[in-house]
Amino acid sequence: MYSGFLNLIDILGTFAFAVSGVFSAMERKLDIFGILIISFVTAIGGGTIRDILVGNLPVNWLHNDTAIWVILASALLTMVFGSYFKHLNTFLFLFDALGLGLFTIVGLEIGLRKGFGAGICIALGTISACFGGVLRDVLLNKVPLIFQKEIYALACILGGIAYFMLKRTAINGDVVTGLCIFLIFSIRIIAVKFHLSLPQITVK
Amino acid sequence: MYSGFLNLIDILGTFAFAVSGVFSAMERKLDIFGILIISFVTAIGGGTIRDILVGNLPVNWLHNDTAIWVILASALLTMVFGSYFKHLNTFLFLFDALGLGLFTIVGLEIGLRKGFGAGICIALGTISACFGGVLRDVLLNKVPLIFQKEIYALACILGGIAYFMLKRTAINGDVVTGLCIFLIFSIRIIAVKFHLSLPQITVK
Amino acid sequence: MYSGFLNLIDILGTFAFAVSGVFSAMERKLDIFGILIISFVTAIGGGTIRDILVGNLPVNWLHNDTAIWVILASALLTMVFGSYFKHLNTFLFLFDALGLGLFTIVGLEIGLRKGFGAGICIALGTISACFGGVLRDVLLNKVPLIFQKEIYALACILGGIAYFMLKRTAINGDVVTGLCIFLIFSIRIIAVKFHLSLPQITVK
Repeated sequence: MYSGFLNLIDILGTFAFAVSGVFSAMERKLDIFGILIISFVTAIGGGTIRDILVGNLPVNWLHNDTAIWVILASALLTMVFGSYFKHLNTFLFLFDALGLGLFTIVGLEIGLRKGFGAGICIALGTISACFGGVLRDVLLNKVPLIFQKEIYALACILGGIAYFMLKRTAINGDVVTGLCIFLIFSIRIIAVKFHLSLPQITVK
Repeated sequence: MYSGFLNLIDILGTFAFAVSGVFSAMERKLDIFGILIISFVTAIGGGTIRDILVGNLPVNWLHNDTAIWVILASALLTMVFGSYFKHLNTFLFLFDALGLGLFTIVGLEIGLRKGFGAGICIALGTISACFGGVLRDVLLNKVPLIFQKEIYALACILGGIAYFMLKRTAINGDVVTGLCIFLIFSIRIIAVKFHLSLPQITVK
Repeated sequence: MYSGFLNLIDILGTFAFAVSGVFSAMERKLDIFGILIISFVTAIGGGTIRDILVGNLPVNWLHNDTAIWVILASALLTMVFGSYFKHLNTFLFLFDALGLGLFTIVGLEIGLRKGFGAGICIALGTISACFGGVLRDVLLNKVPLIFQKEIYALACILGGIAYFMLKRTAINGDVVTGLCIFLIFSIRIIAVKFHLSLPQITVK
C-alpha cells in the first residue's frame, strides 16, 4: 500500500503531529530539549504504544530513519519559524487530519497482519493515531485533550468500521485503504467545522 | 485454577475496576470516549504493564474477548444507570476487593510460570492489581491515590507473602490460591472499615 | 566493561537516583508504599523504557537482584535518616552525575549490541539515563524537570557523540567508556556550577 502518495501523506502527517507537539511544548515554556522530546512523543508515541502492545519489538521508529529526520526537521523549523507557522494553521489542521486517517489505517493493517479480529484491529488503529497526543498531554501535565472535547478518536473508529465493511465488497484493497483515510479525514474536518463533540456524562 | 468460581470473581473484579474508572472519569467531565478509555485502562492497565515487563506479548487483553465485553458493558451500563450504581457502593467495594485479590494472585502465578523468584512474583502480582489505578490517575492528571492513603498495595504484598508461605505446607494448591485471594480481600476490607493507612514521611 | 570500578559507580548511581526519588516523593506527602514505588521508578524507569523499546524482555531489573536490594536499602535508609542526608546534598549530586554518565553509556552499548546506528544508540543511552526522572515527575503530577531547566539530557547526548568520535581513534575501548562517563559527569557539574541552561522558545 505504501505507494508514493501514501508515503507523502505519512510524511505530511508526521510533520503535522510533530509541529503540534512543538506548539504545545512552547506554551508550557519548555527548553529546547523538552520541546524536541514532546515533538517526538506526539509524532511516534501512538505507533510506539501499538508496537509494544502487539510485540513488534524493537519498535518501528528505531528502524525508521525517515520518521526521525522528518520530526527533527519539523521541530527545528517550527522553533525557528514558529511565528510564521501560526498563520498556516489551516494547512497544519489539514495535514493533522490526513495523518489521523493514515496512521489509523496503518495501525489497523498491522493488527490484521498479526491475525487479530476486527474490533482489536480498530482499537490498534485508534491507539496508533490518537495516543501520541495522549502521551504529549500527560507529559505536559494535562488531562488528555481527546478525552474531553471534539470528535477525534471517533473519526478513527468510524473509519475502521467502514474499512471492514468495505473489505467485504468487491472494491480493490488499495481503494478501500484510500477511501477510509479520506473518510476519517472528512469526519474530522466536518466535526471541527460544525463544532461537533461527544456528550459528557456527569454523575447526577 | 480457572474453575467456574475464579472465573466469576475475575468477571466481577473486572466489572468493579471498570465501574470505578467510569466514576473517576465522570468526575473529571470527560466525554463518552474519554470515559470508555479510562474504564478500560483501570480494568486492564495493571495486567498490561505486567505483560509488557515480562514479555508476554501481544498483551493478554488483545486475546481476551471476555474482558473487553465485560468492560464495555460495565462502562455503558454505568454511564446510563450511574445514579443507581451510586447506591450500590458497598457491592462495588466488595467486588473491587475481590478483584484486587484475584488479580494479585493471577499476576503472581504468571511470574512463577516465567521462573521468577518469590520477591519478583509478589511485585508482579501487586503491579497487576494496582497499576491500572495508577494509570487511571495519571491520565486524569492526579497523583495516584494508592501512593497516598489507605492500605491497598500492602494487602497485595501481604497476600503474596502468605502465598509463598502456604505453598511450603501440605495444603492443596487451589486451596492456597483461594485462601490468599480471601486474605487480600479481608485485609482490604478491614483497612477501609477501620480507616487504617500507612504513615507518611516528610522531610524534617 | 563491568570491572569492579564500573560496578561500584553503578551501585552509587542507583543509590543516588533512588534517594532523589525518595526526596521528591516525601515532598508530595506520599505514604511509605508510594515513596518506595517512586524510588524504584526513578532508579530503574529509564532502563525499563529502553528495554521495552528494544525488546529486551523480561526487562533487566526482573533479573537484577543487586539493583532491587540497593534501591530498597537506599529508600529505607533515606526514609529513616532523611534529615541527615539533606546535609549530604553535594555527595548525592556527585553520585547522581556519575550515575547519569554510567547509565548513558550502558544504554548506548546495549543499542550497539542490538546493531543500531549511532543516533539511535545515543537516544537509547539518553533515555536510559533520563527517563526514570521523567516517569518520577509524571507520577508526582509535575511537568518533567529535565524538559524545563538545567543541562541534563544534553550532557548525555554530548557524551554519546564523544563516544562515537573516540571509538574511531586507537584508544582502548574501556578507556573510551571511562572517558565518556567522566565527560558526562563533568558537563553536568559545570552546568550546575555555572547555572547553564538551554534556552526556552516561546511563541512570538
